[in-house]
Amino acid sequence: MHPNPHKAAAPFTFDLVALDGDARAGVFHTPHGDIPTPIFAPVGTQATVKSLTQRQLTELDARLILANTYHLYLRPGDDLVAEMGGLHKFMAWDGPLLTDSGGFQVFSLSDTRQVDEDGVTFKSHIDGSTHRFTPELSVAIQENLGADIIMAFDECAEPYDRAYNIEAMARTHRWLERCQAAKTRRDQALFGIVQGGVFPDLREASAEFIASLDLPGNAIGGLSVGETKPEMHAMIEVVNAVLPADKPRYLMGVGTPQDLVDCVGLGIDIFDCVLPTRLARHNAAMTDTGRMNMMNAQYARDERPISVACTCYTCQNHSRAYIRHLIQAREMLSGTLLSIHNIHTLLNLVAQLRAAICAGEYHDFARAYLAHLNS
Amino acid sequence: MHPNPHKAAAPFTFDLVALDGDARAGVFHTPHGDIPTPIFAPVGTQATVKSLTQRQLTELDARLILANTYHLYLRPGDDLVAEMGGLHKFMAWDGPLLTDSGGFQVFSLSDTRQVDEDGVTFKSHIDGSTHRFTPELSVAIQENLGADIIMAFDECAEPYDRAYNIEAMARTHRWLERCQAAKTRRDQALFGIVQGGVFPDLREASAEFIASLDLPGNAIGGLSVGETKPEMHAMIEVVNAVLPADKPRYLMGVGTPQDLVDCVGLGIDIFDCVLPTRLARHNAAMTDTGRMNMMNAQYARDERPISVACTCYTCQNHSRAYIRHLIQAREMLSGTLLSIHNIHTLLNLVAQLRAAICAGEYHDFARAYLAHLNS
Repeated sequence: MHPNPHKAAAPFTFDLVALDGDARAGVFHTPHGDIPTPIFAPVGTQATVKSLTQRQLTELDARLILANTYHLYLRPGDDLVAEMGGLHKFMAWDGPLLTDSGGFQVFSLSDTRQVDEDGVTFKSHIDGSTHRFTPELSVAIQENLGADIIMAFDECAEPYDRAYNIEAMARTHRWLERCQAAKTRRDQALFGIVQGGVFPDLREASAEFIASLDLPGNAIGGLSVGETKPEMHAMIEVVNAVLPADKPRYLMGVGTPQDLVDCVGLGIDIFDCVLPTRLARHNAAMTDTGRMNMMNAQYARDERPISVACTCYTCQNHSRAYIRHLIQAREMLSGTLLSIHNIHTLLNLVAQLRAAICAGEYHDFARAYLAHLNS
Repeated sequence: MHPNPHKAAAPFTFDLVALDGDARAGVFHTPHGDIPTPIFAPVGTQATVKSLTQRQLTELDARLILANTYHLYLRPGDDLVAEMGGLHKFMAWDGPLLTDSGGFQVFSLSDTRQVDEDGVTFKSHIDGSTHRFTPELSVAIQENLGADIIMAFDECAEPYDRAYNIEAMARTHRWLERCQAAKTRRDQALFGIVQGGVFPDLREASAEFIASLDLPGNAIGGLSVGETKPEMHAMIEVVNAVLPADKPRYLMGVGTPQDLVDCVGLGIDIFDCVLPTRLARHNAAMTDTGRMNMMNAQYARDERPISVACTCYTCQNHSRAYIRHLIQAREMLSGTLLSIHNIHTLLNLVAQLRAAICAGEYHDFARAYLAHLNS
């Protein structure tokens, strides 16, 4: 019931080691190491998980890091990263890496964008310059970056606009086939992305198409973008009933501790989210009982760590009073210490979920965990 | 010729282990550990060396950290620090700590100040509120903070104003006697501070007075504040001819690699300066051959570390290209990586100086080092 320790296993195979209801524990093999699932991937948008050294990520036992194709294409440029030996070498992270396709960013970050069948023309959020992504270019950029897992170029539509979702989903499917055709590297796994907004029939159709391509992994996009939690859960259920059980399922851009517990129960294996580092920069600590605003005056003379039971570097060494002081004094170290704590909280949660699944106790664990969680 | 490894040695004794001309290698014993000298102390103004965790400081083998009384008195308050168990516990740094007296800051940071025989009334740089420091209060604050080495409350005058220096020096001497009388803790060493501007006769008189008090260590203040290097060196020579050889000599607020090499040659044992972390926040790397502006376009595709021979974490893991990318992308990690590198450069330099002194090769080392140094 433990992850396969042999890195020599064939790349991109997925071993299911335990099932507990719909919840799964597995190991995804990549050229840069094994990823135990369920897993949470900290986000290193610009080839750095904000405020942390790669040694700190190793100490946190991070097993998969995400980087953003859109950002790295614009700065420093994927050609430069390739010239420096690829993203692993460039950022000095020897473990598994995942890059998204840039699709989400050109639809969410860019001021203006124009979509046509061939691709998307957009303006840089940095300097307003005009750029164009196509499925082929997204793959070429991601091949320059060289992450272990790369994502298909997709179109993320407004979740409630049915007509737009039908159109965007169909285009996403055609773009995926173009990504597959464009792909040349054998040491990267291409994941397809299910779209379809909040519409079960569209989600089902999309999952059927994506599953039919027999990719090494599959993702669910366009969720956690404004829809309700029941809608999100319903979409995941529809999709996971279709996606193959023997491939990892990646829910993009999610989430909170509650989301992780809920969606692991629905059969999700991989998560990523900027939440732990973003909350850290906004002075919030994530704990197993909810969020704490560490700037709060009540912590000024509080000698306790953020979480008494937490084993992270921050909680092993520092008091709430010290962290509040750093925040009040506008010291960078507060962001670092809270990022360490928040990422640890999520990595510890997925490790606990995995252990519970292996022990056949997912539902007991989830019930107990959620009963104590306030936010 | 190695530092005494026994922490049990009597606190605040200073063992001279080697002399080489006026350069000295020693060990200063404190309740929180031995400090090999010459030593450079990174500055943790607000109970944090900016952008670094205390674990990173330990990995850098930092042996003495300075914190600022003025800042900690204003925020979070020395009473709060005392309630949290003192500065060592508050900031989770179990090694030797030094606090300055606040004297320099009330004269340099405060918008307005009024000096009288009893003390200084000043306005907070944070909120403009009015505060008053006296020698007795400075000692009381530093006793609340609990550093191993505490500094006498002094008046730092304009270096070229002779009349003001005569007055300020005499007051500094009277304030030192009041600090001595006010001091109650036996686990803290009080250092006196020599003043006297750029005037050799005043510096000599000040050193004679300070030396007469037989304190566990002595400091030189009011240098590196606008005078020329030859003036600074002349003052150090005058002062060190008077200060006892069997007590450590601390040159406050200095300095650059050149300063460290020069002033160790003049018999200085302890240095502190914000330079390595301040330069890091301004994208500059300190190396044994000079400063590098890491934002420079020439580093964009440079796969080499900042310094090929450097053994710091940053140079062992990261390229100039990556660091430049972090700077361009305004990522906090650039400040952390450059702070690690810059502090390592100065700590490595004082370690090399110490080894050279122990080998009787200070002058050869200094000549060779300075021949390669451009800034």
